[in-house]
Amino acid sequence: MGKATACVLGGSGTLGREYIKALSNHPMIELVSVTGDSSVGKTLGEISESRGFDSLPSKVSDIKIVPSKPELIESDLVFSCLPTEVAGTVESAFREYGHKVITDASPHRLDPDVPLIIPEVNPDQFGMIEAQRAAGSKGWIVATPNCSAVGVALALAPLRNMGVVRVGVTTMQSLSGAGYPGVPSLDILDNLIPFISGEEEKIAKETNKILGRHDNPILFAVTSTRVPVLYGHTASLNIEFDREVSPVEVSAALSSFRGRPQELSLPSAPEKPILVSNASDAPQPRLTRDAGTVPGMAVTVGRIRKGFDNRSVQFVTVTNNVVRGGAGGAVLTSELMLKERLI
Amino acid sequence: MGKATACVLGGSGTLGREYIKALSNHPMIELVSVTGDSSVGKTLGEISESRGFDSLPSKVSDIKIVPSKPELIESDLVFSCLPTEVAGTVESAFREYGHKVITDASPHRLDPDVPLIIPEVNPDQFGMIEAQRAAGSKGWIVATPNCSAVGVALALAPLRNMGVVRVGVTTMQSLSGAGYPGVPSLDILDNLIPFISGEEEKIAKETNKILGRHDNPILFAVTSTRVPVLYGHTASLNIEFDREVSPVEVSAALSSFRGRPQELSLPSAPEKPILVSNASDAPQPRLTRDAGTVPGMAVTVGRIRKGFDNRSVQFVTVTNNVVRGGAGGAVLTSELMLKERLI
Amino acid sequence: MGKATACVLGGSGTLGREYIKALSNHPMIELVSVTGDSSVGKTLGEISESRGFDSLPSKVSDIKIVPSKPELIESDLVFSCLPTEVAGTVESAFREYGHKVITDASPHRLDPDVPLIIPEVNPDQFGMIEAQRAAGSKGWIVATPNCSAVGVALALAPLRNMGVVRVGVTTMQSLSGAGYPGVPSLDILDNLIPFISGEEEKIAKETNKILGRHDNPILFAVTSTRVPVLYGHTASLNIEFDREVSPVEVSAALSSFRGRPQELSLPSAPEKPILVSNASDAPQPRLTRDAGTVPGMAVTVGRIRKGFDNRSVQFVTVTNNVVRGGAGGAVLTSELMLKERLI
Amino acid sequence: MGKATACVLGGSGTLGREYIKALSNHPMIELVSVTGDSSVGKTLGEISESRGFDSLPSKVSDIKIVPSKPELIESDLVFSCLPTEVAGTVESAFREYGHKVITDASPHRLDPDVPLIIPEVNPDQFGMIEAQRAAGSKGWIVATPNCSAVGVALALAPLRNMGVVRVGVTTMQSLSGAGYPGVPSLDILDNLIPFISGEEEKIAKETNKILGRHDNPILFAVTSTRVPVLYGHTASLNIEFDREVSPVEVSAALSSFRGRPQELSLPSAPEKPILVSNASDAPQPRLTRDAGTVPGMAVTVGRIRKGFDNRSVQFVTVTNNVVRGGAGGAVLTSELMLKERLI
Repeated sequence: MGKATACVLGGSGTLGREYIKALSNHPMIELVSVTGDSSVGKTLGEISESRGFDSLPSKVSDIKIVPSKPELIESDLVFSCLPTEVAGTVESAFREYGHKVITDASPHRLDPDVPLIIPEVNPDQFGMIEAQRAAGSKGWIVATPNCSAVGVALALAPLRNMGVVRVGVTTMQSLSGAGYPGVPSLDILDNLIPFISGEEEKIAKETNKILGRHDNPILFAVTSTRVPVLYGHTASLNIEFDREVSPVEVSAALSSFRGRPQELSLPSAPEKPILVSNASDAPQPRLTRDAGTVPGMAVTVGRIRKGFDNRSVQFVTVTNNVVRGGAGGAVLTSELMLKERLI
Repeated sequence: MGKATACVLGGSGTLGREYIKALSNHPMIELVSVTGDSSVGKTLGEISESRGFDSLPSKVSDIKIVPSKPELIESDLVFSCLPTEVAGTVESAFREYGHKVITDASPHRLDPDVPLIIPEVNPDQFGMIEAQRAAGSKGWIVATPNCSAVGVALALAPLRNMGVVRVGVTTMQSLSGAGYPGVPSLDILDNLIPFISGEEEKIAKETNKILGRHDNPILFAVTSTRVPVLYGHTASLNIEFDREVSPVEVSAALSSFRGRPQELSLPSAPEKPILVSNASDAPQPRLTRDAGTVPGMAVTVGRIRKGFDNRSVQFVTVTNNVVRGGAGGAVLTSELMLKERLI
Repeated sequence: MGKATACVLGGSGTLGREYIKALSNHPMIELVSVTGDSSVGKTLGEISESRGFDSLPSKVSDIKIVPSKPELIESDLVFSCLPTEVAGTVESAFREYGHKVITDASPHRLDPDVPLIIPEVNPDQFGMIEAQRAAGSKGWIVATPNCSAVGVALALAPLRNMGVVRVGVTTMQSLSGAGYPGVPSLDILDNLIPFISGEEEKIAKETNKILGRHDNPILFAVTSTRVPVLYGHTASLNIEFDREVSPVEVSAALSSFRGRPQELSLPSAPEKPILVSNASDAPQPRLTRDAGTVPGMAVTVGRIRKGFDNRSVQFVTVTNNVVRGGAGGAVLTSELMLKERLI
Repeated sequence: MGKATACVLGGSGTLGREYIKALSNHPMIELVSVTGDSSVGKTLGEISESRGFDSLPSKVSDIKIVPSKPELIESDLVFSCLPTEVAGTVESAFREYGHKVITDASPHRLDPDVPLIIPEVNPDQFGMIEAQRAAGSKGWIVATPNCSAVGVALALAPLRNMGVVRVGVTTMQSLSGAGYPGVPSLDILDNLIPFISGEEEKIAKETNKILGRHDNPILFAVTSTRVPVLYGHTASLNIEFDREVSPVEVSAALSSFRGRPQELSLPSAPEKPILVSNASDAPQPRLTRDAGTVPGMAVTVGRIRKGFDNRSVQFVTVTNNVVRGGAGGAVLTSELMLKERLI
């Protein structure tokens, strides 16, 4: 069986680079085309900011960037990391035309017929694709979560059946989450910024959708901050349950959590989706953003302890926002869909 | 009326420098002696790390460092910024001898007969001094809070009568809070550390003592983190009330809060102890740690908004940990005591 | 005698803010108008990013921003901090119209009839104004140097008569030198950038012009780098002389250097333009960028020592790029011109 | 042929960790023992600061730390990363006893009979070992250079025959160069420090020894600074020749440079010891400290251009101080000696 062919929409920017890296030597997928705006006509080799020291495999390096038009693309699969402003309409056009789109962009995430997928958590949502087809689309769109929401939702998933009712979250998000050029250095050196536009709502809404809590949503109180860290979003969570739950139970549930990607030993699936530490000062973003068997794919959790009372547990998580919260999450989703013959 | 004379215990270190700066030209207090360990016999001028560019007033510069022994000191007032390990016993010895000690160190803070003072919040606790006298002390000890607790307690004080029951706190504390040499740069550049030993308990216990909630404590769930910021502790607070409370009410209560230091126009009293901003991205530590009429003495608050539901309000605070949370808080305490003839 | 009235061209940006601050309470100059592009019609109060905590004096706060057109401005004096792209033509138009322009922008700096002024170093260049008048201008332009060149030229000025022939310079320049938004945080955290466009040539050419070395230029080899520091440009200099010169002589020449602004006790003139330290690890940008009697106006120098041989001396300088290298340098220039009745 | 067995002296600290990593899966060498002071009796697994997320191979993890005594060690080869204060005497004792010591510590580097080796540059110095034997030692000591000197010397090596006479150097050295805990974060955030004790002399003296310029030393003028970068020492070099030399010639000489390790395809030998970039803003430490075929072993060079005049060329280098300037350089040295049957 040959590899599935793939295109990356908006692949000429910094987010795209992560996709190109992830797909350059992929056992199941072959990157065959990349779209972009400003760089149309150039090859990936020409636009890669190698500064002369590193280089892409020549097969990938020779790919020419084409405009983001559905009729120019022929591939089994389309990844999208388009900018928010254009992602909604371009992805819809690709779906109309018949493409199978896995997107990391936000516009379609909360569409009721679009699956919002963390492969270990809710592969059952792939079923929503049928509703897209029923509504007349020739193709479909599958979304992956916001780079902060993914860590929160993945860490809450193993606690799903333990009666989670309210979650207080304060995030300390890395600079790469803001894209490039992103946060000016003058704004963040010797400083932090206690606000990221739209992020707090996304964490609340996306987590509830991912966990299937539409009718009985978890109440969230979220504060999102930006800190001078390059990669790795940290979150401090205080979880309240409708019953007594001990830190030991929570720790066991997180450590033992596995999903379908682990059963299938998918290439981008880390052995453990959640790594738990008992060290007093873990997890730290620089030290653990690449921990585990597949760098960047595991969420690290530490400081699991009592919260307000016996019905409340606190912990801290670190999530690699450009891998698990970006290209890695989308590629793992595609691997699962390929293996489950959904593509 | 002449100035009160003052000594600084442990004044030869980095914390001491803030006291020396604060007292160098003080209208009510004259610095007359400084104690220290390693530098005994040297003058303040000799140990000040001026690198040749700045200098202390000569009167202060000529003060010779003496050992921390009660019988060597004659001053109306003694400030202590001794290291935790020795502060407890040395301060007790000074009290026994008859000295009036205002301390920024932690050992005596939770003693039932030691006032734990934020001058705007709980000057009624000065009454506890009597219990110390009754127990046979010739002098007394008055404590000021931990550098993180002071911001939390000051921001909660105006809400005291609104039925606060639970508070979730995540702090992002600055490097100066760890003293010198403190946090190694290799540990914190491009990183944060989600743990500070002892800090979470202090925030919970000290705030309850300051607010007089001994019998009916506020429940706290606190996570303390260290971030690469030089000065200014940021805290994200989620406050739950036993009734409906709106962000507008909270904002009004914080903005209009004043205390006895403001009534008396004390030299270190900022016009407003709490500055509220409506900007979307305030408060930021580098931008607001010195805001207000007395640099470093006002707590800045922003992002006041709904929490989980109508009984919950969230906001973010920034507190200057070396001024309001250090020398400034202690000096303001002494000003109030002098004015109220408690010294 | 009343105050001179002043306008700031391009005063609505971050550079402009420094001018507004410097002129808000100036004893000789009154700010009466500000020009800008995007913010025309708004008041300075409205555009100041106060985040709600600080505020401008009301007289200044009420100034409305007008377009950069010569006929709209009536003031004794015009400061320009316009962006490079437009500064050249707009400043020429203002000169034609009859305005007296002191500019911090680069386009006119190397014009043969434009004085390039460091007030302590080369007030004789004010004579060049006559050439502008002779060429038919009703007004004139006086320029101040690049924010890196000013520190190099000021530190070399006291050595002018000691036979300087070659200077190797490596700068470590701060983020604020790149303006706002300037350097993306993703580019500079845990990093440095060994190139700043145009900077190396400016340091060489402007220093030679300032020091009057047109016919016998000092040879420069300059490397300009950007480092993660907010304010304060550091430079490592290795100076070669045509004779034997000792570090002690150099130190004495730098320490004792004074200029006309010091003689006249101008408001923005630091007591000593150059502060020399004997500490082993001085000067450091964060610690000394505001050293001296007028914060930001003194260049600090340290590590004065032998270079290759007895004809070569090395040292390190720190210059506050937004004060001495920005608004402060221009305002000091205007103070000198006012006092010398050149305006 | 079996693997050579190796011991790491002082291997329980942060430097040691790099050696353990480098030797954990080495094709020619097997790590069999580690010495240390404070951790004697513990296993490497116990002291590794894994924070629970990563782990060493079990064979290595089980190694027990023993005291640094020659008679306790039986291995073909001994690496030393002992602290400077003790390295001199301990290494001498090991040599006396008969051990073959490759050291990264400074005390023996300038001993006239100790080779100071960069394997690509001066393997001829291995001959000095004979002098040690002749002086009565049963074993020998071979040294590797200071972490800053190695980059300077490696970049100058290809220019050896072009008449280098003087070199001006300003380094911008990373925090890891100071060891752990090293530089306090309060000293370096938003700052740089223009002095590193002993470093400037080492760069001058070691480079001359490495390049065999004992009788005709290159004149150096060096300024060493510490900047807030985690790994990767940057150096700005201005090289003066005794003849006309063009940037193009220099670039060609650097690019084409190869040594004996490349001929022998040693495991730690990068394909190119020096990587040259034509990008305008290369090399940057974070982007290039791991460039090339063996991460951390290539020196990256950029901005090759004219200096003062046609006899002077400038460029900028980045060297990975913990790999090429630490464990990697020592291990490459051992590989060459093993292959050349010197061990």
